[in-house]
Parts: sequence; C-alpha cells; structure tokens
Amino acid sequence: MNYGDVIATGRLEFVSSESIIDQYREKVDARLVTLLPSEETLPTELHQAIRYSALGTGKRLRPAITMAAAKACGADPLLALDAGCATELVHCFSLIHDDLPAIDNDDLRRGQPTCHKAYGEAIAILAGDALFALAFEILAHSIADPAKAQKSLLCLARASGSQGLVGGEVLDIQAEGQSGDMALLQTIHARKTGALLGACCEIGAIIAGATAEHQANLKQFGEQIGLAFQVADDVLNETSTPEQLGKAVGSDYAMAKLTYPSLIGLDNSKNLASELVTEALKLIEGLPGDASELKGLAEYAVIRDW
Amino acid sequence: MNYGDVIATGRLEFVSSESIIDQYREKVDARLVTLLPSEETLPTELHQAIRYSALGTGKRLRPAITMAAAKACGADPLLALDAGCATELVHCFSLIHDDLPAIDNDDLRRGQPTCHKAYGEAIAILAGDALFALAFEILAHSIADPAKAQKSLLCLARASGSQGLVGGEVLDIQAEGQSGDMALLQTIHARKTGALLGACCEIGAIIAGATAEHQANLKQFGEQIGLAFQVADDVLNETSTPEQLGKAVGSDYAMAKLTYPSLIGLDNSKNLASELVTEALKLIEGLPGDASELKGLAEYAVIRDW
Repeated sequence: MNYGDVIATGRLEFVSSESIIDQYREKVDARLVTLLPSEETLPTELHQAIRYSALGTGKRLRPAITMAAAKACGADPLLALDAGCATELVHCFSLIHDDLPAIDNDDLRRGQPTCHKAYGEAIAILAGDALFALAFEILAHSIADPAKAQKSLLCLARASGSQGLVGGEVLDIQAEGQSGDMALLQTIHARKTGALLGACCEIGAIIAGATAEHQANLKQFGEQIGLAFQVADDVLNETSTPEQLGKAVGSDYAMAKLTYPSLIGLDNSKNLASELVTEALKLIEGLPGDASELKGLAEYAVIRDW
Repeated sequence: MNYGDVIATGRLEFVSSESIIDQYREKVDARLVTLLPSEETLPTELHQAIRYSALGTGKRLRPAITMAAAKACGADPLLALDAGCATELVHCFSLIHDDLPAIDNDDLRRGQPTCHKAYGEAIAILAGDALFALAFEILAHSIADPAKAQKSLLCLARASGSQGLVGGEVLDIQAEGQSGDMALLQTIHARKTGALLGACCEIGAIIAGATAEHQANLKQFGEQIGLAFQVADDVLNETSTPEQLGKAVGSDYAMAKLTYPSLIGLDNSKNLASELVTEALKLIEGLPGDASELKGLAEYAVIRDW
C-alpha cells in the first residue's frame, strides 16, 4: 500500500486511527489518575507538577500501542493497561527533562507552559525523576507473572537509558548546529523515539505470552513506527500552525536542528514515513490476535493533517 | 552498647569497619567498570560523564550494605554484587541531580568538580538519567530468579521515587531557609537516605532467599542506619576540614539547611546517631547467616573521625 495515496484519499482510515487513539486514551487517562501518587503522600508542589505533566493533553500513543500489541498477540488489551501507563510516564519524564533550559529550552509543550515554566527548574527535574521511578514501580507491581515482569522491566530500562531515549537526546543536542547526515539522524531517532516504541510493542507481546519470534518482530515493528512517527513530526513541525502544533512553528529549524525535511525535503520525508510504515506492517502479519488496531495506530503515524 | 563510649575508645572497631568498606569497595569498583556501557556504544561526553560520576571516590556504602545483608541471611555476598552496584548507581544519579545549579548548586563533590561543573548541565542531567535507567537494567538482568528480580525491582523503584529519594530531595529544598522541627527533618532523611539503605538491606535479603520477617527487619534496619548515617553526616559537615569532607565546611549551615546540630546541638546529635544504631542492631539478631560485617557497617555510620 502506498501511504502517499492514503494521505490524499484516506480520510476514513485517518478518522478510524483517531478513534482508536481516543478510545485508548480515555482508559489510560482514567487509570493514570489512580496510578499517580495521592496528594497526602507527597510535597504539594511535586504532586502538582507530576499531575500537570502526566495528565496533560498527550495522545497517549505509547500506551495505545502497548495495549494494541497485546491485543494483536491474542490477549485482552486491558492486561497491558498499567504497562502502557508505565511507558507513558517514561515519555513524560523525557519530555520534562528535554524541555529544561539547559537542554532544549522550550517554553511550551502541548500548548501549555512546560513543567519548569510552571513549577521552576528544581521541581521539574525532580518531577521527571519521580515519574521515571514510578514507571518502573508500576511495571514491577502490575504484571502478575514474575518472568514477564522481569523481562518487561529489562525492556523498559534498556529503551530508556543511554542506549535508548537518554542517549538519543544526548546525540540530538550534540547535533545542533552541526552538519549531519541521514545515518546520524536515523541513529538519533532510533534511540530517541524508536527504542521506547519498540519496547511498548515488545512489552505488549510479553504480557500476552507471545512467542519469542513474535516478540522480536513486534519490537522491530515498534522501532520502525517510531522512526516513521519522527519523520512525520519533523514534517509537521514545518507545515503546521502554532495552534495545531502547540508550540512555535519551525522551532527545530530555528535551533538549527537536524531534521528529515532539512536533509531530503518535505515530499521525500513524507514518502519515507510511508515506506517505513509499509515495511513495518509486514512484520506483524500472522500474529495470533486481532492486529487491526495496531495497524491503525501505525497508519496514524503518517496519515496526519499534512 | 553505648556508641558514645565506642567513639572515645573503639578505634579498633572503627578500623575494622573501614576494612569492611575497603574490601567491598574493591569488588564493587571492579564490577562497575564492567557494568557501565562501553565507549563505542555511547556519545563520548555521556560516556565520560557517566564514568566520572560512577567511578569516583565514593565509599560504596550501599553496595557493601546490600552484600553484607545477603551474607547476614546466609548467602554468598557476591550473589548481591550486581544488585549492590545498581543501588550505587541510584545513589550516583541522585547526587548528580541534587548538585545541579537549580537544586543544591554544589561545585564540589567528593573533592572533585561536580558533574555539571565538569561536563555542563545538559550532560549532567542526562548522565544522571542514564545511570538511573542503568540501575534498573542491571537489577533486572542480574537476578536469576524472576520472583526475586521482580520484588527487588519494586523495592528499588519505591525507594528511589517520590516517596523515597526524590521526594526527600523535594522536601529538603523546600525546607531551606524555613523553620522546621525534628519531625520534618526525620521525614526528609527517612526518604532521602533511609529509603534507599532500607532497600539495599531488603534486596540483599530477597536475593539470599530470607524469610518475609527477616526481609522486613532488614528493611527497617537499613532505614534506621540511613537516619544514623545522615545525623553523622550533619555532624561531620560542621566539624570536619574541607579536605576531610571534599566540600566546603558548614555549607549546609550557609544554605540555612535544617540539620540535626542546628536543632539539637552537636553532642545530642552524636548521641542520637548512637541510639539509632543500637536500636537498629536489635533488628538483625537471629539472622541465619554471618551478620558481623553488616554490624560493622552500621557502626561505621557513627564511629567516624569526629
């Protein structure tokens, strides 16, 4: 399937992906409220900053993908709800830290003041740390089978650390203002976005009791969708209105960030996203469960308001 | 036993505790070198900052206590070496973040420039994050029995997060320049120091396959030793030379930090540390293994160069 065509004609599928997102988001948001620590147990500002950052207006793509991966492997997606929430908290932690003045120095996130703008730098750093710890706590607590829990925790830790999310952010800030090529850009996004989405899919598969081969395929699927998603984000960062984006348009360009459009142009970037999704979808053929939602979420990565 | 007397007369025991520390530190330092990610896999600066902070001149008290707790429960302490390293990395992560300009703004740590002074704030924040993730990765990877791994990971996550280490740091910075009492000070240190030392002891016990009762007692033992250690640190912060301390003397006082000496005076603080250790030692009577090293480490908390 050529997603270039779908972008032009596929509004129905786009709406369908949106409704998958909405349906999971509702469950995830309700569960996050319960999983976050209660007011009595925390210093007030930390409690507020944690909820401000974790209960904002995010799409909850990572939990949706975690749950849809479990469903694609034949399990009830609700079995992976808490694990999905854990992946979302890792995402929230990384956004808070990336936005800090010393790193990306962003004032707006999802249309709202960033955590450090709202609560100060000290609380923002520590709220990020607290959410990161909470992700592991939730994952360790929520999976009944110890072997599945151990494996999921290993996945999440690897995807988050120096060879995943955090390492990708370091490469990203080092690339600012430097000349770079596609190889570097792919490495940055493989770590910064691909690793965690790969872990989401793998954890969903682990919880569902999928075979080792299906776990590996789903991991790779998530990694590729992560790349596609990042290409799409780079495109949106240049073509959207500030209202659509929730932050200043072209801000990556202003920071002299390495982006796909800056390297290969807008049209080639859209085609690349499409090809990545097409390739990724081959990896999830023949799973034992219903993979339609997982496919819908993959398509969501490229079929957006371009 | 009155540790007030021991402080005056017990040089032999002090030396003995030092040698326990030295003996474990050697094993831990050698193992940490192997457990930290290799140069080829990481951006150079991140690699350097991680090693700078994790392989510094720390006492490695947390790994020593983790291993000694396993020994006290009848296991080979080497079984808990990697888990001990994981607790040390959580400690390193928290020091890097606490030292940041937005938090404690410290220029020196263990006699060396703090991580952000050496590598800049962005790398320091992310090196801390990477060490935190690595701690969970090591713990998930190193414990063969999934049930023990899951339980240990839950312990470490709880001790690190908003109701442990991170929450304690928030209370600590909020208490600066405010009037406070012993209840607040105890809460700060129970979270900031006690929680992680409690987790060290509990994880050592879990790995050793100790009974639930022994696990609970060891956790409480670690929490109390953590408090004793913090009282001792407050005393040392006021009575040492800068060379002994590796940072400016009286810096806590200069920041108008709430400390034990500022609330109850130096002598009462020394006595409190002694009482906490005496009470703690009652909790580890009757363990199935050799608890002599664990006792020695507890004594080390109060028998220092006052």
